[in-house]
Amino acid sequence: MNFALPPKYERLTATTVTSYLDQHPSLAARLGGDRSAWRVEEVSDGYLNLVFLVTGSTGSVCVKQSLPHVRVDESWKLPLDRNRCERIWFEHVAPHVDRAIPDIYHHDSDRFILVIETLRPHEVLRTALIGGRRYPDFARDVGRFVANATFHTSDLFQRYEDKQEVIASLRHNDALHRIMRELVFQDPFFPSPRNHWTTPQLDDIVGQIHADPVLRLAASRIGYKFMTSTQALVHSDLHTGAVMATDGDTRIIDPEFGVYGAIGVDTGCFIAHLFMAYYSQPAYASAEDDRTAFQTWILEQIEIFWDEFRRSFLDLWRAKSGGDGYPAFVFADAVGAAALDAERERFLDEIWQDTLAYAAVKIIRSIIGYSHFGDLEGIADPDQKAASEAGALSLGRLLLVEPGRFASISDVTAVASKLQQQRRSAGSRLSFSSLKDI
Amino acid sequence: MNFALPPKYERLTATTVTSYLDQHPSLAARLGGDRSAWRVEEVSDGYLNLVFLVTGSTGSVCVKQSLPHVRVDESWKLPLDRNRCERIWFEHVAPHVDRAIPDIYHHDSDRFILVIETLRPHEVLRTALIGGRRYPDFARDVGRFVANATFHTSDLFQRYEDKQEVIASLRHNDALHRIMRELVFQDPFFPSPRNHWTTPQLDDIVGQIHADPVLRLAASRIGYKFMTSTQALVHSDLHTGAVMATDGDTRIIDPEFGVYGAIGVDTGCFIAHLFMAYYSQPAYASAEDDRTAFQTWILEQIEIFWDEFRRSFLDLWRAKSGGDGYPAFVFADAVGAAALDAERERFLDEIWQDTLAYAAVKIIRSIIGYSHFGDLEGIADPDQKAASEAGALSLGRLLLVEPGRFASISDVTAVASKLQQQRRSAGSRLSFSSLKDI
Repeated sequence: MNFALPPKYERLTATTVTSYLDQHPSLAARLGGDRSAWRVEEVSDGYLNLVFLVTGSTGSVCVKQSLPHVRVDESWKLPLDRNRCERIWFEHVAPHVDRAIPDIYHHDSDRFILVIETLRPHEVLRTALIGGRRYPDFARDVGRFVANATFHTSDLFQRYEDKQEVIASLRHNDALHRIMRELVFQDPFFPSPRNHWTTPQLDDIVGQIHADPVLRLAASRIGYKFMTSTQALVHSDLHTGAVMATDGDTRIIDPEFGVYGAIGVDTGCFIAHLFMAYYSQPAYASAEDDRTAFQTWILEQIEIFWDEFRRSFLDLWRAKSGGDGYPAFVFADAVGAAALDAERERFLDEIWQDTLAYAAVKIIRSIIGYSHFGDLEGIADPDQKAASEAGALSLGRLLLVEPGRFASISDVTAVASKLQQQRRSAGSRLSFSSLKDI
Repeated sequence: MNFALPPKYERLTATTVTSYLDQHPSLAARLGGDRSAWRVEEVSDGYLNLVFLVTGSTGSVCVKQSLPHVRVDESWKLPLDRNRCERIWFEHVAPHVDRAIPDIYHHDSDRFILVIETLRPHEVLRTALIGGRRYPDFARDVGRFVANATFHTSDLFQRYEDKQEVIASLRHNDALHRIMRELVFQDPFFPSPRNHWTTPQLDDIVGQIHADPVLRLAASRIGYKFMTSTQALVHSDLHTGAVMATDGDTRIIDPEFGVYGAIGVDTGCFIAHLFMAYYSQPAYASAEDDRTAFQTWILEQIEIFWDEFRRSFLDLWRAKSGGDGYPAFVFADAVGAAALDAERERFLDEIWQDTLAYAAVKIIRSIIGYSHFGDLEGIADPDQKAASEAGALSLGRLLLVEPGRFASISDVTAVASKLQQQRRSAGSRLSFSSLKDI
């Protein structure tokens, strides 16, 4: 892979970002006023990119630049091309998702800079969940968004030839997909040096995970599906840090891992991160709010998300056709229409199975793999952190080893809740729970 | 789609093919002697290409040229690029399949000419089966070939990045894939004007096929899998006309439909065509040979083919790794190795299910769809033709509506044989048989 920096590439700084914007009249006009008065705020917090918010007298933009390495590890080289892929994803889902993504103002393919709408006063969903703040619409909005983005880019709606074109244009995102495959499906399930966890508290559980062949097999199986399925254009990293919300609006950001893949990748990832937010809550309890009501609310949001996704996807499929998959004209008569409708339910059941497996793998990798996330990682007391993590890991393990026991989303939230009660009463003794224990 | 002919394209004739070869010293040298003495034989017999065999004093070559339309219907335009795709397929499987494909001598991307090894004294397998001639190794050879070609191009062995490169390079084969999807998974299952069949004999059966929503659903389901799976580089048109055999050698030709798809596409297609050869036999009976022993032999070959494919694929997977799917290092310990081996069996069981569904769809499309094939199409007496076709259609229907009843290849050959006996005793009354009838 070629990691040589292209000649025009220069890493932006809080100073150079304003001169860059000033050189582009449409962007400068959007900010308004004199460049010297623009306010720059660096908000890079992911693993991959530099991010600046720049505000002028009349407006604001968000400037995102690809770095040639992992942001937190300069020795881990990465190709820069990924924000071209991000742009491609935005462009292809935009016609189908109302205003669920930010506006794209500018893309510079020499400097790997993407300038997009600043989302304000939106809050990152993960931050809100850590803070115990409720956004009433996010679950329904994200459910509808995933249904719209995946249905309209699937073979149920899109022409096969158009899909092949997008697949070819996203090919150079290979390096990111390799990272994802290795860090998600492989490393967490065997003793890889890239893993880390809350030690010594979770050592025993991690040992059990690495000793259990059922877990690595389930992870490899869903990983293989991830590699060989081109069901729809998926976001592929739809965690709670990729969702920004206000009381009336929800937006999806950061699709640089976007790829044609299995639809369950997006539903599973989002559910996984909501469950991790759920298990992290006790650590954020205060005298005013013990967070038990908030936990119940999170479980409700998980159900709302899945139900909305499923209902929306089915509604879209019943209302629209045109793709090469299950062509409408073949099922035009009454018996055909009835058979196709039963098949739609089966199709969604298969996405459900993928969702469970992917959610489980994502939970496990977020606790014992390379990349961790703020809700659990931010818990200061290691014993409390490990207790929350053990609850989430128990759920993840059950979803992988006994998937047949979870026929509906309420089966999952019920078990999650029981595990949480059990964890509360278990004190510092951390272990896996099996379904017969709860 | 752009169907304008490129400036250098000129349709070869028996005359111009020799001057073309003469202009290429390496090809002329292979033929030997003077151009005026070269013997040209046009052997075009497929739906898509011109094919000439040219023989000189020391050697022979096979010249294949893409036509800008379906060979038998000049109004049906086709892009010419497909023999580039054919070359790509040959190049990518060549390192893994011993001598199971012809040597490639020359590819002209301006004139869409591919010059390959002449296979002599090989006979087209379909012709041999019509003639009642047995090649002792073909079933095992083709089984091993499919295992080698698909395993080595799958994510079990190949790097994901390399696979993505092949997928992108084959993208312009879209037009052929559209034809295949429409003619295989759609048209035969509803009243499309492109369908035709032996009429009036099969009218009632065709009516039943078009009335049965289970059949179109099963066809659409495997068609959807075909569109969304990138398991391996498949030949995608592996019928008995794409196999050439001698007593000691078997070769695979005509991969212009080659694409990344589900592995069951190749195993299913080959099995489908062997079953059609089986049902066609009574029409070719003579006083010396009633073909019943030959029919039994064909069923044995079907079993040998599948068993060899399955065994070879498993052996390859156990012996080799390196791909991103089920990475070997994750399953290196004893419990991991045991779990992975069980998963391999499950993996092959899934290919088996795809094989059954695809074989069934291929049988049905070859009898009532657009493209028909010589073994059944060549039967002169329409009643006898329809009787053979009804037997094959009955098997195809059973495989689609009761797939759970066929756990192994011998379950399929046993039912095929019973259907054939039943057909013999039924006389001219043609209808579908259900499993309880036989």
